[in-house]
Amino acid sequence: MAEPVFKRVALIGIGLIGSSIARAAKEFGGLAGEVIANARSKNSLDRVAELGFADICELDPAKAVAGADCVILCSPVGTYAELAARIGPSLSPGAVLTDVGSTKQSVMRDVGPFVPEGVHFIPAHPIAGTEFSGPDSGFATLFQGRWTLLTPPPGTDETAIAKLRKFWEIMGAQTAVMDAAHHDRVLAIVSHLPHLIAFTICGTADDLADETRQEVMQYSASGFRDFTRIAASDPVMWRDIFLNNREAVLEMLARFTEDAQAMARAIRWGDAEYIEDKVIRSRKIRKSLIELKQA
Amino acid sequence: MAEPVFKRVALIGIGLIGSSIARAAKEFGGLAGEVIANARSKNSLDRVAELGFADICELDPAKAVAGADCVILCSPVGTYAELAARIGPSLSPGAVLTDVGSTKQSVMRDVGPFVPEGVHFIPAHPIAGTEFSGPDSGFATLFQGRWTLLTPPPGTDETAIAKLRKFWEIMGAQTAVMDAAHHDRVLAIVSHLPHLIAFTICGTADDLADETRQEVMQYSASGFRDFTRIAASDPVMWRDIFLNNREAVLEMLARFTEDAQAMARAIRWGDAEYIEDKVIRSRKIRKSLIELKQA
Repeated sequence: MAEPVFKRVALIGIGLIGSSIARAAKEFGGLAGEVIANARSKNSLDRVAELGFADICELDPAKAVAGADCVILCSPVGTYAELAARIGPSLSPGAVLTDVGSTKQSVMRDVGPFVPEGVHFIPAHPIAGTEFSGPDSGFATLFQGRWTLLTPPPGTDETAIAKLRKFWEIMGAQTAVMDAAHHDRVLAIVSHLPHLIAFTICGTADDLADETRQEVMQYSASGFRDFTRIAASDPVMWRDIFLNNREAVLEMLARFTEDAQAMARAIRWGDAEYIEDKVIRSRKIRKSLIELKQA
Repeated sequence: MAEPVFKRVALIGIGLIGSSIARAAKEFGGLAGEVIANARSKNSLDRVAELGFADICELDPAKAVAGADCVILCSPVGTYAELAARIGPSLSPGAVLTDVGSTKQSVMRDVGPFVPEGVHFIPAHPIAGTEFSGPDSGFATLFQGRWTLLTPPPGTDETAIAKLRKFWEIMGAQTAVMDAAHHDRVLAIVSHLPHLIAFTICGTADDLADETRQEVMQYSASGFRDFTRIAASDPVMWRDIFLNNREAVLEMLARFTEDAQAMARAIRWGDAEYIEDKVIRSRKIRKSLIELKQA
């Protein structure tokens, strides 16, 4: 059998994404010689041991990364700075240090300073997820047909980048390399703003009088339901995403708000043509998605 | 075989909803002795004749309603005032006059004045739809497990209301009776505002620089895609809904915008607890929906 891409992969954090990587490593082969799982709480790690998809469970992140040639941060992005400070001194020369967080400039800022000489630091973001979280929720095929975006700093070793791409591609992902700031702007509009809106409208609906709230639930099939689908996400993960992609999220929200106000004005003043044009345009975008087979 | 609920049902407008009713009448039995289809354009009506789900196709709405004991307006709500003026004099005494529009106060306002003495006027709204429109898009089971809301004016004949409820229930819908103003507020939050937001965010994304727009499509799986699902709707229908539920839609948008601004402020100032609370609350709403089996 061919050599796996990495001899020893350490997963720091073992929720939906981490446990999916671990399961993929076990099921697909060619990814990792062995998998070390680390979790913040002993309870989670005990559960990982029960589930049996990791070769070693280690509660101390510094010990977990020792001897690993690939370390993947899989906890909420708000934990990275502290984690990087703890694991930095234990990273092996030549190892790849990567992550799976949804914001990439913050990772450069929080982790970058702790990366020792000779360690290949390649922030990454698999665009995949479900509404569930925790080590029970992962599955080996989570990344199939999805994108993983890599945002290596300029000058990163090309061989290390190629290895990490191969790792994700074996799991079924398509990969692309882009600049971290560009990543954060793109994700702000395609993911962070839609989530912010979904979380907000759930609150707006819930603030209505009791009687109406019951009806919101009952008649949700008419549109509201589609918004709640993406609103059922992990609170700590999302708190950290918003706080760590602050500028891009606020900019996209400001653009959206201007556009919503223009729509409101058209409704108030009966500008039928403006409204119709907006709906026609949305329809076109939906059609483009269907043609791209993204819908 | 038992008598059908209505002897002769005239469908004024024969798009997704109208053609689904016609197909249900043909497939289920017990609904209508015969079905008359009317459409604004000869092309549409020719297509209806080809599809064969109507007993009679009639291009003149006044002729279509003559002799019908149930008349259902199935065209965009913006067409109702003119239609009501045309068909009013031809409505038969004792007939039920109803509709399927998504705004109900506007129907009272636009149609009410043209309803002759002795005709039972019962505005109604089946909460069902797909992203497709036109006579080809309908199907007999569209209303199964969905709600149809009836908003009869005070004093409406109870027997007529019961007949119309039975008509919808045979098609598989659950029915409820409510006040038109209340209906419009509930629908503004569960349906009209989510659609307004979805149409808006598609435009916001499309306005980004060319390079980013391509990526919005490519990485849409991360949230944006769920918004486009409801954005692929009929432009004229939605234009009319916004213009005919103006006050409620603008009020719900104003509430939502305040809430989104509060979220923006929390992100700007790093109020982690506020953000987390909002996400937790959204998750609870999603769970309630799943428990109600609406998701």
